Amino acid sequence: MRIVVTNCNTTQEMTEEIVRGARAAAGPGTTVTGLTPAWGPESAEGWLDSYLSAAAVLDILRTYDGPPYDAVVMAGFGEHGREGVRELVGAPVVDITEAAAHLACLLGRRYGVVTTLGRSVGQIEDSLETAGVARNCAAIVGTGLNVLDLGDDERTETAFLAAAERACAAGAEVLVLGCAGMTGLQRVVGEKLGLPVVDGVAAAVKLAESLVALGLTTSRVGSYAEPLAKRRVWGRPEHRQ
Amino acid sequence: MRIVVTNCNTTQEMTEEIVRGARAAAGPGTTVTGLTPAWGPESAEGWLDSYLSAAAVLDILRTYDGPPYDAVVMAGFGEHGREGVRELVGAPVVDITEAAAHLACLLGRRYGVVTTLGRSVGQIEDSLETAGVARNCAAIVGTGLNVLDLGDDERTETAFLAAAERACAAGAEVLVLGCAGMTGLQRVVGEKLGLPVVDGVAAAVKLAESLVALGLTTSRVGSYAEPLAKRRVWGRPEHRQ
Amino acid sequence: MRIVVTNCNTTQEMTEEIVRGARAAAGPGTTVTGLTPAWGPESAEGWLDSYLSAAAVLDILRTYDGPPYDAVVMAGFGEHGREGVRELVGAPVVDITEAAAHLACLLGRRYGVVTTLGRSVGQIEDSLETAGVARNCAAIVGTGLNVLDLGDDERTETAFLAAAERACAAGAEVLVLGCAGMTGLQRVVGEKLGLPVVDGVAAAVKLAESLVALGLTTSRVGSYAEPLAKRRVWGRPEHRQ
Amino acid sequence: MRIVVTNCNTTQEMTEEIVRGARAAAGPGTTVTGLTPAWGPESAEGWLDSYLSAAAVLDILRTYDGPPYDAVVMAGFGEHGREGVRELVGAPVVDITEAAAHLACLLGRRYGVVTTLGRSVGQIEDSLETAGVARNCAAIVGTGLNVLDLGDDERTETAFLAAAERACAAGAEVLVLGCAGMTGLQRVVGEKLGLPVVDGVAAAVKLAESLVALGLTTSRVGSYAEPLAKRRVWGRPEHRQ
Amino acid sequence: MRIVVTNCNTTQEMTEEIVRGARAAAGPGTTVTGLTPAWGPESAEGWLDSYLSAAAVLDILRTYDGPPYDAVVMAGFGEHGREGVRELVGAPVVDITEAAAHLACLLGRRYGVVTTLGRSVGQIEDSLETAGVARNCAAIVGTGLNVLDLGDDERTETAFLAAAERACAAGAEVLVLGCAGMTGLQRVVGEKLGLPVVDGVAAAVKLAESLVALGLTTSRVGSYAEPLAKRRVWGRPEHRQ
Amino acid sequence: MRIVVTNCNTTQEMTEEIVRGARAAAGPGTTVTGLTPAWGPESAEGWLDSYLSAAAVLDILRTYDGPPYDAVVMAGFGEHGREGVRELVGAPVVDITEAAAHLACLLGRRYGVVTTLGRSVGQIEDSLETAGVARNCAAIVGTGLNVLDLGDDERTETAFLAAAERACAAGAEVLVLGCAGMTGLQRVVGEKLGLPVVDGVAAAVKLAESLVALGLTTSRVGSYAEPLAKRRVWGRPEHRQ
Repeated sequence: MRIVVTNCNTTQEMTEEIVRGARAAAGPGTTVTGLTPAWGPESAEGWLDSYLSAAAVLDILRTYDGPPYDAVVMAGFGEHGREGVRELVGAPVVDITEAAAHLACLLGRRYGVVTTLGRSVGQIEDSLETAGVARNCAAIVGTGLNVLDLGDDERTETAFLAAAERACAAGAEVLVLGCAGMTGLQRVVGEKLGLPVVDGVAAAVKLAESLVALGLTTSRVGSYAEPLAKRRVWGRPEHRQ
Repeated sequence: MRIVVTNCNTTQEMTEEIVRGARAAAGPGTTVTGLTPAWGPESAEGWLDSYLSAAAVLDILRTYDGPPYDAVVMAGFGEHGREGVRELVGAPVVDITEAAAHLACLLGRRYGVVTTLGRSVGQIEDSLETAGVARNCAAIVGTGLNVLDLGDDERTETAFLAAAERACAAGAEVLVLGCAGMTGLQRVVGEKLGLPVVDGVAAAVKLAESLVALGLTTSRVGSYAEPLAKRRVWGRPEHRQ
Repeated sequence: MRIVVTNCNTTQEMTEEIVRGARAAAGPGTTVTGLTPAWGPESAEGWLDSYLSAAAVLDILRTYDGPPYDAVVMAGFGEHGREGVRELVGAPVVDITEAAAHLACLLGRRYGVVTTLGRSVGQIEDSLETAGVARNCAAIVGTGLNVLDLGDDERTETAFLAAAERACAAGAEVLVLGCAGMTGLQRVVGEKLGLPVVDGVAAAVKLAESLVALGLTTSRVGSYAEPLAKRRVWGRPEHRQ
Repeated sequence: MRIVVTNCNTTQEMTEEIVRGARAAAGPGTTVTGLTPAWGPESAEGWLDSYLSAAAVLDILRTYDGPPYDAVVMAGFGEHGREGVRELVGAPVVDITEAAAHLACLLGRRYGVVTTLGRSVGQIEDSLETAGVARNCAAIVGTGLNVLDLGDDERTETAFLAAAERACAAGAEVLVLGCAGMTGLQRVVGEKLGLPVVDGVAAAVKLAESLVALGLTTSRVGSYAEPLAKRRVWGRPEHRQ
Repeated sequence: MRIVVTNCNTTQEMTEEIVRGARAAAGPGTTVTGLTPAWGPESAEGWLDSYLSAAAVLDILRTYDGPPYDAVVMAGFGEHGREGVRELVGAPVVDITEAAAHLACLLGRRYGVVTTLGRSVGQIEDSLETAGVARNCAAIVGTGLNVLDLGDDERTETAFLAAAERACAAGAEVLVLGCAGMTGLQRVVGEKLGLPVVDGVAAAVKLAESLVALGLTTSRVGSYAEPLAKRRVWGRPEHRQ
Repeated sequence: MRIVVTNCNTTQEMTEEIVRGARAAAGPGTTVTGLTPAWGPESAEGWLDSYLSAAAVLDILRTYDGPPYDAVVMAGFGEHGREGVRELVGAPVVDITEAAAHLACLLGRRYGVVTTLGRSVGQIEDSLETAGVARNCAAIVGTGLNVLDLGDDERTETAFLAAAERACAAGAEVLVLGCAGMTGLQRVVGEKLGLPVVDGVAAAVKLAESLVALGLTTSRVGSYAEPLAKRRVWGRPEHRQ
């Protein structure tokens, strides 16, 4: 099967890193194709970025003309757009935020999320709440790192461990990596903490494979009916930064 | 004071209608300026439209170069984007969804929302929930009408009254017009129903005026800090419908 | 328009202070009339005081024979009675507790309340909950000051700032003055904290003006129908302290 | 032990009926003393009545000079005041609303309340919510009867059974009599419905006896500290109806 | 009346201690019979123990052939099984977890639970939640002591007081002994803390007596209908430890 | 990998049917081993059955001496025990109740559960609530069929469709088969209803495979630490029915 993984920002390197993570998680028969939005923010940090990203991700999927795919994984932790993608595409859609939470719920009584900036906490809270999996979330804690800072492995790890401690003090028994750019960190911090650590990209790939294998896709009854036919313009002719 | 009212879609007539409603509600010293997004959907019905609309509304505000304004009213009932606008602009921001609910809470123990299509119910639910005013919402009921059907006054009124009955049976003591395009309907249906009916556009104008008069604006601490400086592209060069 | 502002206690000086705050917030065409209950507690601190106050406020409104008014503002933060007043009077009724919370929700993702004694926290919690605006309240924190201590400005300010810090640590991005007697403090502490601070009296005046301007008043369907005609005695013949 | 039972209205006959119900429930060593407020409404139906009643009940307890008592039972279903009484008296205080719900929770997974007028539903909802026992309440249903109509046994029973059916359809497995004036009805409707029916007066007497027997009384730490010493006036000198 | 009190583990000494506590709480006409499961864990600490205990408690009641009883008290704090016992026996059933919470709700605005091991916190949380009385629970705090360590009075008391402090800091105004083995501790720690402390065994005995006195028993409509007739095997022929 | 699937009852035929469903869902490299408890109820319908089943399932896993396994799937919809199994075994554990809900949340905004008897509704509610996935559950509806009646395909299908309609009226956009014995029904009713229908057994197999593939297993920190070493007896020597 083919899974399309959409990065939520325009940074090609990040798409590649996410695709690496997705491929590491994918089963033998799964092909992973990464998509980088043609426009949008270079990293999504905050609500403005998130809404801009949502439109750009919808646009890249709307204009996709590659080989048919079986599922979409949306790789923006806490970012908006998943319900729109569910309307747009026929295949099942899994967002890494909800995916990580779904698996985390199976591994402990309460889970915690460690993310980048404190300003992202609210978006993640809302995303988990509307996905229906916030109930067992004990805490969402920021590390203070920017998305694009995550390249510095040592600093990231130190900041992650400090934030993880706060999540555990609040009752977390399982941790979730709260940013697609943290993919890869789960093994090393999991060992240091003695806790399962869930990466949303990997979780979403497995959930997407699961839905495809079971022949399940988004319900068209009610909320996620196909978009109505109408005139829509996707961005201004001469866009400015 | 000047209030900028943003339509959530590209239909100029709807902006004008909304501006008429806003002006009818505005106090003597208030100037209302309507903004129609330069791109986006011609009407917002569903999640895809809503996310596209959110980006387009952010864009029209980002590139606004008219006279300075004191507040923003976002006139898309149940549409996304308000948190992003709070990051973007220095002035206070009021979304008509939350505005209607805030006033409705003051008028009865439980309120109900009557909206257009059933597919919008979920968005409105989420919007009220995250705005913090869903607790006293007894029901959100669709009329089955499209946004662009709202021109037919008789049909709209009949459909509204039928949906209102269902909301009242669920406990609503106050009603909210669940679409910016319904502005103007509140008086006639209010009389027929013997209930207060709140129009979100009017409510938002009064709340915006209130915040401005009190010198209050969005907190920059935490969630709604200014957007980080970074590269962002607002729509693809050669956009397609 | 005329707004009647009811103090919740019998201390005339406090009524005057509240009226000053209300007038400062009121629009050009608004007349503010203060009412001091003819009986009740000299300050409302705790549940017994609050229930006594509620009956006395109902009584002063019931026997009011001044010029007609357009709205009632109830100026007891966290005090009981608003639903009864909604039954009693034909005009819209706004309680300062809910009013502050409604505006605070528009200014940040989570708000906090700073009040006088710790014993008031519970009443405020219940008042916000039943008003339908508790969801985004991050914390209610007491300063340890009595209502009648609030005259000492420096001590009040210091105690307020310490309590505000605790509210912010709990996630508050906006603050609410949790006592009518704190009116006036919002500007100075707002500047020191770099946060919007909402005064309930001012907020309630603007919301009352908004409802009046929009022709909205309390729903008579369901909870807030007019009181039934019956024999009621308002206080004992020879009352004792 | 002596239990003081406070009626919430000034109707002496109703006090006597409540006392009969309380005595039927009381254990062999328990003396029941009924108190009728010296002022207040002749029946409590709606919020205004409820707040007036709360002050009058506080007043009758404040000026009580009979033999010492061991507990207070407050016999107004859904009426206000219990937290104030907890501050005022040293003995444990049980309100019939919460009492009925506490026992009902032990008898089935979900309970329902059948009350008099629809306008009382909201007060009961709030009372159960703040008492901490609303979670397992499936429905609160009005019969349409006034408190003072309850004398007509056949009409009451018929209306009760119809309302009970609606509560059961909503999931109730146990019923609660939602008015002190319904005391006595539990046995006959219980048999007809094949369900346990809890009378709040009886429930409160047993809970009060239980607390006394275990030497438990209201915590003075935090919310229910003794009222502060201050000037309070309980009703206007020359009161008017 | 006769109350059967079921220990949740196989330790006869603990049954005796519980029975002593139950008898101290019981009214003059009440006979208390203790039952020790014929199998199960020697102490219940954790979910595996709890489920094993639930089956063993059901078994000892199923095969009970002593004199008829009027009520069952289940003396395992936070342990499973109460709904099954409600199906099985005709008499009312009270679990000490819910019982303590019901009484605690009457004594303060928020209560806290002090239990043994941290691993029990989750079970207690779930038990209070499903019993419908979690709303006013401020905190559940572990002392770090094993059930079988509770014999050391001084150590228990010290650990209890430290944990109680944390519960109070979280808002508890009343405390609950979170283990049947703590029975007896309530008086000494209550005095030291200046707070009411509720023992679940005593609370459950009083609630059971109350239900019996009022002629109330478990509803057979819906959730707690009698078990269906079918083949059931209670433990393997040659069981192994 | 090897997945052990535990039936919750002693009916070997049902184990076989479940294993068939599990194998149909399993990936190429997955071996499914069914386990039938050596004791317990012949079908689990109600709380008593559920607790008996939980102990019996724990026992069959505790005494398992087959080839090593990588994950456990617990195939009792709404039945107890999963937290105990998480303590007991080192491998990840997935219960079919939570599994179905996790996948259903990905497919629509609200899901509904169609189960056998009405008496099971409460157990399922509690199971979803504590698993942290109840938020988006619109309704749980009984068909009125016993577990052992499910053999009659036509009757089952008719009853399922009628119950499904009620779930959809309550807002469900996706359905869940609320009994392990319904496995196989998803395709036929899904087509008739035009909705995705999730089978818990299949869902749990995929989630178990996912966890194993990602190297994730139950957290040992906090709630699900290994059972303490102690004396436990699993069933009485000479058990009786």
